[in-house]
Amino acid sequence: MIHPTMQTLRIFSDTPFSETNALLLKQGIGPHELIIPVNRPASVLSAPAPDPSFPSADIAFGQPDLESIARSERLKWIHVSSAGFTRYDTPEFREMAIARGLILTNSSSVYAAACAEHVFSFMLAQSRRLPQALASQAANASPAWFQLRSECISLRGQNLLILGFGGIATRLVDLLAPFQMNITAMRRSPRGDEGHLTITEEDLPAALATADHIINILPENAASHHFINATRLAQMKPGAVLYNIGRGSTIDQDALLAALRHHHLAAAWLDVTEPEPLPAEHPLRAEPNCFITPHIAGGHADESGSLVRHFLENFNRYLSGRPLLDRVL
Amino acid sequence: MIHPTMQTLRIFSDTPFSETNALLLKQGIGPHELIIPVNRPASVLSAPAPDPSFPSADIAFGQPDLESIARSERLKWIHVSSAGFTRYDTPEFREMAIARGLILTNSSSVYAAACAEHVFSFMLAQSRRLPQALASQAANASPAWFQLRSECISLRGQNLLILGFGGIATRLVDLLAPFQMNITAMRRSPRGDEGHLTITEEDLPAALATADHIINILPENAASHHFINATRLAQMKPGAVLYNIGRGSTIDQDALLAALRHHHLAAAWLDVTEPEPLPAEHPLRAEPNCFITPHIAGGHADESGSLVRHFLENFNRYLSGRPLLDRVL
Repeated sequence: MIHPTMQTLRIFSDTPFSETNALLLKQGIGPHELIIPVNRPASVLSAPAPDPSFPSADIAFGQPDLESIARSERLKWIHVSSAGFTRYDTPEFREMAIARGLILTNSSSVYAAACAEHVFSFMLAQSRRLPQALASQAANASPAWFQLRSECISLRGQNLLILGFGGIATRLVDLLAPFQMNITAMRRSPRGDEGHLTITEEDLPAALATADHIINILPENAASHHFINATRLAQMKPGAVLYNIGRGSTIDQDALLAALRHHHLAAAWLDVTEPEPLPAEHPLRAEPNCFITPHIAGGHADESGSLVRHFLENFNRYLSGRPLLDRVL
Repeated sequence: MIHPTMQTLRIFSDTPFSETNALLLKQGIGPHELIIPVNRPASVLSAPAPDPSFPSADIAFGQPDLESIARSERLKWIHVSSAGFTRYDTPEFREMAIARGLILTNSSSVYAAACAEHVFSFMLAQSRRLPQALASQAANASPAWFQLRSECISLRGQNLLILGFGGIATRLVDLLAPFQMNITAMRRSPRGDEGHLTITEEDLPAALATADHIINILPENAASHHFINATRLAQMKPGAVLYNIGRGSTIDQDALLAALRHHHLAAAWLDVTEPEPLPAEHPLRAEPNCFITPHIAGGHADESGSLVRHFLENFNRYLSGRPLLDRVL
C-alpha cells in the first residue's frame, strides 16, 4: 500500500503508547519517520506544550497544541487521538485550517462503540433500578419488594431524544433497534438520511416535553456551553431521565441539581462532569438519583491498539488519496 | 368472544390484585363467576393453604395448592400466575394431570421481557464495570482511571451460553442481536428451530469451557438442584461471568463462593438465591465480584395488569377451543 519511491513523511506522535502499540505504529508506517516529542502529555485529553521537533512534522497524530500548529510551515494533516476536539473547534482554527488546506480527523470510530454501550448500560441500569436493587435485601412479597418491582420499566416503546448525532448515536441506535423506541435526534445539520426523526435546535422544546430519556452527546464548544440549562431542564417531561456522555460543560450542574432535588427529573447519569473528577463534596454526589462514572464511556480493553490501527488505516488512505475516516475539516 | 348461552364457569383466583385489576378480571370473564378465597397468599410465589371454595372451581388462576387440586373433581385448567411452576413440576403431578386431562399453563409471557431486560442490564453493567465505575472518583489519566477503562469489554462477538431455553431466552436473544454474540443454548429437548447452536446436557462441558458469559434460567425441579456445582464451575472458562435469573437452588452457592474467591470466575450476578432474601451476613454478600438483586427480574410497572390480561387472553382461547399460550401440560 505504501509506495517505496514516494517522499518520506514525518509523523509527530505525542500519545504515550505501550511498547507493543508503539511497535505496531512504527511498523505500520513502513519507511516513513516517527517523531516522538520530548515531553508527552499524560492523557489523550491533555493540552501539551510546544515541542521543538514539531516544526519538521508533516502529520500530527495525538493532541498537538495550537501554537505549534500555527507556527508550522509543513503540517498537512492532524489526526486527533480522541473523539472530542474542543481545542480545534473554534471559528479561528477552522478559518486557519481551511486557508492552509490543513486536514483534521479525529478518532471517534475508536470510541463510538464503547460510548454507545456505556450509555446503553446506564439506560438499562436505570430502567431495571440496578443501583437500588443491588443495595436492597427486600424479602419476597414485602412492601419494599413490590415497590422495587413496580418501578422497573421496559425501554420498549419509550421516547428517546439524542442531542448530538454522530458516530456514537449511530451505533447506539443500532443497539437499541430491538427495543423499538421512538427515537428523535437533534443535530446541527440534519441530512435526511438518519432513518428517524431528526430536528434542529428550533424544535427542541417540543421534543424535550415528550422524551422519557434524553441522551446528551454534544461536543464542547462555544455554542454548547451550558446548553442544558434551567430553561431546557424545565421543558423536559416530568420524570424524564438525563444521560451525559458528551462533555461536562454542556450542562449547567446547578440547574441540574435543582431539577433533581425537585424531582422534576427522575434521575441523571453522568459520565462527564465539570470539573473532572467532580469533587467528593459536590452536592450532585450526594443526590440519590444522580449516578456518576469517571469519564470512562470511551474506555475499552484494546483502546490504544485501536487508536493506532485507526490511525494506520487513515494513513494508508492518506497515502493513496482515498477519503479519510472521521474527517472533521 | 364469550358465548352467552354456554355453561357458566367458576374461576378461582387467589392472586391479591388491586381494585383496578380485580375489576379488569371480573369484567373480562363476562358472565362467568369469580371465586375469591378467604385466605389469599401474600405473593405469587407463596404456597397457599387449602380453601373451602376451591372444590367448586372449574379453573384456577394463581397458585393453587396440590392438596386442593388432588381433591377437586371439577378442576379442568390451572393457569399459574408465575413463570416458575416448581410445585407442579414433579413426575407425580404430571402423571395425575395427564390421567385427568388437567391443563397447566403458566404466565411466562408476562415476565419474559422483563427478565430478559434484567439479565441484559447485568451483562452491560458487568461489561462496562458499572458497580466499580459508580464507586470510583478516579482522576482522568490516573493509574486507577486507565485500569478501569481497560477493564471495559464489549459484548460484541463474545461467547454466550444460555442454560434453559424458553420465553426469556428467546426474548434475550432478540435483544442481543445487534451485538453479534456467539450464542449457544442448552435445553432438555432441542427442536432444531432455535436459530443458533442448541445442545443437551451431554455437550455441556465443551460449551462451559468456551463461554465468556453463562446465563442460568433453569427452573427448579429434581433434575436442576445444584445443577451448577463445583464440577461444572471448574469446567467454566477462567474469567467467565455467571448470571442466575432462574431459581437459587440450581446453584451450589458454597461452590460458587469458592470459584469467586479463587478468581476462577470474574463475577456472578444473581437475581435468585437460596434462601431469599440471602441473609445479610452470607459470605456471597461480602464478595466484591458477586452482585445480588432481590428476585425482581420479572418485575415491571404493570405486572398485575399484564397477569390479568394474559389470563383473559388464555380464557378467551379456552372458551373458543384455540391453543392456549404458555402451555406446560
